[in-house]
Amino acid sequence: MQSHKVTMLGTGLIGEFYTATLHGGRSRDRVQVVYSRSTERGEAFSQRWGIPEYTTSLEEAIDHPDTDVVVVGLPNHLHEEAIGIAADAGKAVLCTKPLARNAEEAKRILDKVESAGVFAGYLEDLVYTPKTKKAVASVRDGAVGQVTWVRSRETHPGPHSAWFWDGRLTGGGAIVDLGCHCIEIIRHFVGKENRPVEVMCVTDTFVHPIDDEDNAIALIRFESGAIGQFEVSWTFRGGMDLRDEVAGTHGTIWLNHFLRTGFEMFTAGGSGGYVAEKAETDAGWLFPVGDEVSELGYVDMFADMFSAMEEGRQPIETFYDGYVVNALMDACYRSAEERTWVPVEMEWRHGTTPRISVEAETYEGHTVIKSEVLPDGRRKLILKDKDSGEFVDRVVNA
Amino acid sequence: MQSHKVTMLGTGLIGEFYTATLHGGRSRDRVQVVYSRSTERGEAFSQRWGIPEYTTSLEEAIDHPDTDVVVVGLPNHLHEEAIGIAADAGKAVLCTKPLARNAEEAKRILDKVESAGVFAGYLEDLVYTPKTKKAVASVRDGAVGQVTWVRSRETHPGPHSAWFWDGRLTGGGAIVDLGCHCIEIIRHFVGKENRPVEVMCVTDTFVHPIDDEDNAIALIRFESGAIGQFEVSWTFRGGMDLRDEVAGTHGTIWLNHFLRTGFEMFTAGGSGGYVAEKAETDAGWLFPVGDEVSELGYVDMFADMFSAMEEGRQPIETFYDGYVVNALMDACYRSAEERTWVPVEMEWRHGTTPRISVEAETYEGHTVIKSEVLPDGRRKLILKDKDSGEFVDRVVNA
Amino acid sequence: MQSHKVTMLGTGLIGEFYTATLHGGRSRDRVQVVYSRSTERGEAFSQRWGIPEYTTSLEEAIDHPDTDVVVVGLPNHLHEEAIGIAADAGKAVLCTKPLARNAEEAKRILDKVESAGVFAGYLEDLVYTPKTKKAVASVRDGAVGQVTWVRSRETHPGPHSAWFWDGRLTGGGAIVDLGCHCIEIIRHFVGKENRPVEVMCVTDTFVHPIDDEDNAIALIRFESGAIGQFEVSWTFRGGMDLRDEVAGTHGTIWLNHFLRTGFEMFTAGGSGGYVAEKAETDAGWLFPVGDEVSELGYVDMFADMFSAMEEGRQPIETFYDGYVVNALMDACYRSAEERTWVPVEMEWRHGTTPRISVEAETYEGHTVIKSEVLPDGRRKLILKDKDSGEFVDRVVNA
Amino acid sequence: MQSHKVTMLGTGLIGEFYTATLHGGRSRDRVQVVYSRSTERGEAFSQRWGIPEYTTSLEEAIDHPDTDVVVVGLPNHLHEEAIGIAADAGKAVLCTKPLARNAEEAKRILDKVESAGVFAGYLEDLVYTPKTKKAVASVRDGAVGQVTWVRSRETHPGPHSAWFWDGRLTGGGAIVDLGCHCIEIIRHFVGKENRPVEVMCVTDTFVHPIDDEDNAIALIRFESGAIGQFEVSWTFRGGMDLRDEVAGTHGTIWLNHFLRTGFEMFTAGGSGGYVAEKAETDAGWLFPVGDEVSELGYVDMFADMFSAMEEGRQPIETFYDGYVVNALMDACYRSAEERTWVPVEMEWRHGTTPRISVEAETYEGHTVIKSEVLPDGRRKLILKDKDSGEFVDRVVNA
Repeated sequence: MQSHKVTMLGTGLIGEFYTATLHGGRSRDRVQVVYSRSTERGEAFSQRWGIPEYTTSLEEAIDHPDTDVVVVGLPNHLHEEAIGIAADAGKAVLCTKPLARNAEEAKRILDKVESAGVFAGYLEDLVYTPKTKKAVASVRDGAVGQVTWVRSRETHPGPHSAWFWDGRLTGGGAIVDLGCHCIEIIRHFVGKENRPVEVMCVTDTFVHPIDDEDNAIALIRFESGAIGQFEVSWTFRGGMDLRDEVAGTHGTIWLNHFLRTGFEMFTAGGSGGYVAEKAETDAGWLFPVGDEVSELGYVDMFADMFSAMEEGRQPIETFYDGYVVNALMDACYRSAEERTWVPVEMEWRHGTTPRISVEAETYEGHTVIKSEVLPDGRRKLILKDKDSGEFVDRVVNA
Repeated sequence: MQSHKVTMLGTGLIGEFYTATLHGGRSRDRVQVVYSRSTERGEAFSQRWGIPEYTTSLEEAIDHPDTDVVVVGLPNHLHEEAIGIAADAGKAVLCTKPLARNAEEAKRILDKVESAGVFAGYLEDLVYTPKTKKAVASVRDGAVGQVTWVRSRETHPGPHSAWFWDGRLTGGGAIVDLGCHCIEIIRHFVGKENRPVEVMCVTDTFVHPIDDEDNAIALIRFESGAIGQFEVSWTFRGGMDLRDEVAGTHGTIWLNHFLRTGFEMFTAGGSGGYVAEKAETDAGWLFPVGDEVSELGYVDMFADMFSAMEEGRQPIETFYDGYVVNALMDACYRSAEERTWVPVEMEWRHGTTPRISVEAETYEGHTVIKSEVLPDGRRKLILKDKDSGEFVDRVVNA
Repeated sequence: MQSHKVTMLGTGLIGEFYTATLHGGRSRDRVQVVYSRSTERGEAFSQRWGIPEYTTSLEEAIDHPDTDVVVVGLPNHLHEEAIGIAADAGKAVLCTKPLARNAEEAKRILDKVESAGVFAGYLEDLVYTPKTKKAVASVRDGAVGQVTWVRSRETHPGPHSAWFWDGRLTGGGAIVDLGCHCIEIIRHFVGKENRPVEVMCVTDTFVHPIDDEDNAIALIRFESGAIGQFEVSWTFRGGMDLRDEVAGTHGTIWLNHFLRTGFEMFTAGGSGGYVAEKAETDAGWLFPVGDEVSELGYVDMFADMFSAMEEGRQPIETFYDGYVVNALMDACYRSAEERTWVPVEMEWRHGTTPRISVEAETYEGHTVIKSEVLPDGRRKLILKDKDSGEFVDRVVNA
Repeated sequence: MQSHKVTMLGTGLIGEFYTATLHGGRSRDRVQVVYSRSTERGEAFSQRWGIPEYTTSLEEAIDHPDTDVVVVGLPNHLHEEAIGIAADAGKAVLCTKPLARNAEEAKRILDKVESAGVFAGYLEDLVYTPKTKKAVASVRDGAVGQVTWVRSRETHPGPHSAWFWDGRLTGGGAIVDLGCHCIEIIRHFVGKENRPVEVMCVTDTFVHPIDDEDNAIALIRFESGAIGQFEVSWTFRGGMDLRDEVAGTHGTIWLNHFLRTGFEMFTAGGSGGYVAEKAETDAGWLFPVGDEVSELGYVDMFADMFSAMEEGRQPIETFYDGYVVNALMDACYRSAEERTWVPVEMEWRHGTTPRISVEAETYEGHTVIKSEVLPDGRRKLILKDKDSGEFVDRVVNA
């Protein structure tokens, strides 16, 4: 039974979630040292979580002799540097989303860890939520047939820290913050080996006085013909709206990760407690989440990362996936500017995927367009005459 | 207290819904004569609904001396002819959706009724559902602020009659059948005087062996900047998915018209009853609708039509609206083919709408990007320094 | 096509709902005269609804020469007098719920209309909601098998008018206000011919400084063995909670009439509009109802009443039903005081109902307790050995 | 960082859930040896879960030299013997629910572990679900004011193993199987120090050919006046219905643990996968649960148990709680037989709880019954005149 000692880089909200996960329940892994740019925040964080050491030196944190894993929970523009130091130190490195500010930076990061030969995991938590995992497994088992469409929506009133709003540090706006989640959720449902071919995206800045987009909608066409659709916003009102929908030739899946999960509370006010990430009010009807760290996928994500390390396999989400995500987001921005479909430019490491196809049935030489069972047990067929091209109704005995 | 005698054209599913509505409850209006191409269907329909007369002559039905209103419930390619006869007869004419197969045909129809000077109402039921009406009124009252985005989704496993599948008769596929509803729902929420400027659409044929689309997604950009988004499908599994979502600068609305309306039933099977339009199974978990004719808007729609006639005003939905819908659907097809945004080409009768705009607050000379209330009652501001362009966090007393 | 002219007694909230219904849509019936104890309220009401006349004389209103129907929307203690005058006038009389303050008073009212031979309808709207009507029809068609249990819950923060709180005028507290609805809903689901045999009830006064109960829970045992369960409260927080649940040997039904009906709205505030009866807030997450008058059953209720009059049949809800309801509520109060099950004392006009019974299957001479289909298609049986009384698992091929 | 080696007694469904939890994620605890009455099942179980040893000797399993914790996952009638051996061995013992078949047996078990001085934890998982934990914390923080009513419902089509159906082995029917969960959920919400004073219960056997109840409803009156209400059934159709509702003087909580948790799937069939405990169908609309082991509370339950051991404190759920549950269930059976309220007979170890009380406001010497804010900002008061006892409406400026 192996355990790990972790260097945690960053003390923001994501560092809190990560450390809560690593130190939660009966976990056998522990954060040994935390890095913050600020002594005060580092000290407070280490005390809050019972972490033995803290430092303001990135190198010192990463090179700590007792840790074997570095978790990068820093703003986007600091990922490359931190990962570089970790790779040079020969340590496993786990990086928060997005991997980089753009595909070019992501590719350099990917090349770095691959040439260093270190274990690298991409911390895309939302593909690890228990609901998503079970839904993806059901899709693979054929529960919905061939996937034709996936909608992933992540919207809330905007991030809590200043640096998120500075496109120079992040690489963009709501797409870079939220679209990265949606893209990987979509890829999991259509199949990660299913190449994203082209992208159509529209962005706008409706509410916040910033240069980057606070709203975006994108369509991704995959090689199979499936369409991925994401909607991201920093202007949603009502909390955090995190929903996925999957349509297939034989079924449908609807997931709601936050606002309607079977936990509903009305309070006349004054409860005082922490309700949920991004909740907007503390009175009236509230929709808390049971255990955010588990429901948002952090628990299963770190379990996969450490197990993968121990088993000598790749984790479910790799730095290559992070690179693909950046390539898709780059395409989104390009499409929004050119106002047309644009190809996704990237190095593709998987094979090809056949087109969605459903074989047409025939009935007495005619093509069956649709078949319904009538209340009396007979079947109603809608047929197309192959010669004349005419459509006719026909009721037949089952 | 006025009442009306109606000529009903068509005995298909829509004729059933219309007549059920006209003859329902304490209604004071009645169908006097029904037209069907088939004597058998006409006779059966008239007996089922207690209609005094039936005929296979379109002219005879429309020119019936006792009727003052003609309801067109015929396949799309027959609308123009029927409306022409009704207009010549000087009768009020109410036409089912879509008005025509394309904008050109719709414009001819519009011109015809306008030159004849007859009352003309466009039977777009889904803008009349009680939920939609109340939601639209709330939006007008400012409940969600300025509307930035509307999603309207209408999907099911495909229509029940053969002619729907023949694009030559209908003008297209799922867009013409379902998108017409979505477009008007979207227009009601963004404001009908808000000009739809351009359209981006993608279509595909995934499941049914037809030439027209069985799936489509479209984005409509309105003059205010608001984005309308619709998703239509003839391949959805699980019943009829009819949902609308509205996002505004100060609020959110979610409507579900069919599958999750507070009526849930599990049955081990064998109930035998009619559950709901487009339901796929008669065992397991079912989601019936209370009163389809009311929930789908038919009751309020006909009430508006007859009241408008009696009050000498236009109904909420006019033939001009039907023409706008056709113009938008034409743009959808053009965009799907050209694979880019295309302008909406039509005669616009309303004025102009200003851009969505939210005035930025300032704090000590800095632009306020976001403001949150902390648990201790203080406010956390995210500020942008106007000079340096830097973003900073600042906690202040409320 | 008959129509009716109505005498409306009362200008409170229920009078508003009734008149909104009678004058709504394409209705052919009209209120001709309204009675109020106050000239001001009568005048305002008549102007608001376009009613030709108003009066403060009960006799004058009821005896109005042009009206054939009297609708009683008065406080409970005034029902008997008003109905008596209407019966003497030989007019149809429709009385709001509850019929009376107790079974004795209800019986006198019932005897009065029966000896006068006038049409009498009990205005229990909630058994007429479109959802309830369709659910009851499904139950009759066998969708859930034999009904074993019905829960009906009606709770809100308390009524809006002073007289509701005075038990001397009403006959009690939350049971008399809300339990009367629940009882009829339950009776419709278990079968109205299914005799309610005994009642167990507990009451308490938790929040409001009154002598009557602001909370009650009751169990009703019917002759078939089915249990009806109702929960009523004037202390519920969060709006109006109106839910029904039905369990049967082969199925389940869940109805939600108010708070979760597929209409969800978040507003940052200031919308100003009327949201829904008994809503508690005007900001945050709100759950409006599409068309309250229709969703709460008023439309279908009056349609049944007038149609019954015209067809010479009894309406679905009669004064005898109102009497049964009062007898059950009397039993509730008696049980709450005696703290035990008490018999329902009343004149029963229906026959007898057999006990719920499911025939046990046998397998190789053993009683089958339960049968499940395993993932591999085989069946797992839980068997009881008739001789030894032992229980064993057995897996068999299907 | 301590870890534990566990003796697992029993290989049924509960043994599976327990072992899945202990071996799940990054857990540091492990099952060392499993006991089964059958060599085949023991061997299969040990292989399935990577457990080093298995045995058919209860003593051998419990006395295993390497284990410090014994988990009892055996049928109810075997708890006392197994716990006795474990206590004699001086090991920590964790016992599944219910603790015993009745309060007398539970008391002997409690006395045994207390005299032996071993750590003893009661494995009532459903008070440990993340939703329940957060909801209970909110209630303690005052979010709903004073709790007046808790409903806990657990119903499904019946257990999977034969012994559950044999009341001689279990102590009863659905109450013993499911009511034990409900009782502890209710106690957590009303406060565990709030004494359950008396019980009213009704039971029946509707569907299964057994001697014990397959349906029961119970009311529990607590010292504060709060009412706990549970509904349990082995005849529910539609899956597993696990819901809790809490009403308080200032708020409301609704929890749904299984059928409506934001995961909805329609499948035309043939998916083959395991959907959820007690699901009834594998086609149509299904409602899977993300991670049952977490959602049902097993993860947090074992974390509390092991942490409590390590910290030298009592776990949240103790054998004393198990004894209280048995005492309440005994009262349920007694009440069902005597058909009246019966007192709960048990040794009470907590103190007393004051009655729910809300102080009445006054306005100009009158008692305020209710206060509402009108749309125009004024307040409408319903007042009771202290002298006359009359109720009046009064509108005042805010």
